[in-house]
Amino acid sequence: MKIGILGTGIVGQTIGSRLIQNHHQVMLGARSAQNEKAAQWVQQQGEHASQGTFADAARFGEILFNCTAGMASLEVLQQAGPDNLPGKILVDVSNPLDFSRGMPPVLSVCNEDSLAERIQRTFPQLKVVKTLNTMTCAIMVKPDSLQEEHNVFISGNETTAKATVTKLLQNEFGWKSVIDLGDITSARGTEMFLPLWLRLYGTFQSADFNIKIVRK
Amino acid sequence: MKIGILGTGIVGQTIGSRLIQNHHQVMLGARSAQNEKAAQWVQQQGEHASQGTFADAARFGEILFNCTAGMASLEVLQQAGPDNLPGKILVDVSNPLDFSRGMPPVLSVCNEDSLAERIQRTFPQLKVVKTLNTMTCAIMVKPDSLQEEHNVFISGNETTAKATVTKLLQNEFGWKSVIDLGDITSARGTEMFLPLWLRLYGTFQSADFNIKIVRK
Repeated sequence: MKIGILGTGIVGQTIGSRLIQNHHQVMLGARSAQNEKAAQWVQQQGEHASQGTFADAARFGEILFNCTAGMASLEVLQQAGPDNLPGKILVDVSNPLDFSRGMPPVLSVCNEDSLAERIQRTFPQLKVVKTLNTMTCAIMVKPDSLQEEHNVFISGNETTAKATVTKLLQNEFGWKSVIDLGDITSARGTEMFLPLWLRLYGTFQSADFNIKIVRK
Repeated sequence: MKIGILGTGIVGQTIGSRLIQNHHQVMLGARSAQNEKAAQWVQQQGEHASQGTFADAARFGEILFNCTAGMASLEVLQQAGPDNLPGKILVDVSNPLDFSRGMPPVLSVCNEDSLAERIQRTFPQLKVVKTLNTMTCAIMVKPDSLQEEHNVFISGNETTAKATVTKLLQNEFGWKSVIDLGDITSARGTEMFLPLWLRLYGTFQSADFNIKIVRK
């Protein structure tokens, strides 16, 4: 499959590398088609990897991943070009973290709205599926690196898009337990988990953890 | 020990009943000293149980529990009387859920502040320890009712108060894993977990769950 990843940071690279291991073709999109981080990554990853602008990556991908910083996501999608988006699934792994007011960061949107909802409202031609945003990227693509099973959540308005992304999480990354929280408004829940995640990160001095839902 | 519980709802009653099982003396505090729910509870629980006003319960307790609805907590503590609070630990299990704008409720404070911080700022004579607010009350007092171990979090400015509450969680309720998230500002993390908790509750159609932190 052809996958377009918006963002060239550690999250985009980690997801991209994992998908290339699985023999998919991945283009990393950036503001500039000559982005240096993307160029290094393409060199490492070989023939299935490519780079381009946000618009190039959006055009290229049958499925898109939003791996940009949450504060930049709406503008990046605008740059990606609304014409390149219709009908495509956007797997939104971003969080609206605002680092401008010191540490720990606060959320730039929460409670009665979420970044995922803003993206879905602004780009109704996309099928936005929020997932994976509740953990560090190494665990996103390799859930079995932790001691025992744990959970990933999924939110979105389109049942078929969520089914496609659930299969991708299972088959490409090895997720065993995907919990469907409901429509895209449920992304408020996972985005608002970030403040607890950040405190746990501070407590453990490590990002190598995730949550598991324990039931009766 | 003498324990004062502010609030006569299911949370206060459940915590109170568990502490009475453990042979503590518990007073449930309400707006009125004749509160009917409290009267029924006292009748059920026997000689170690009593009821009174918020001020009576605050005066009575060596340790206090805030089991009021979060939207009412500050006003209830005002009614409890600042003179009855100095030096006392307030175990704050409340959440600032605002049901006035429909379901699911939103938080009346979050992100750059929390209810626990507001309580601590308004009543600096209290040692506020936020805990147990991330689960339903049946699990608060009986963590072994779930299939496997899971976690409770604790936030507060006073190390000795947190140590006292940690022992209470362990010895009275049977908690095995208490995670200290840091000072009272870390209560933002656990209060902001509520939107995810509410979505999980909607998904499972059951409140009988909690989260476990899984590490590497």
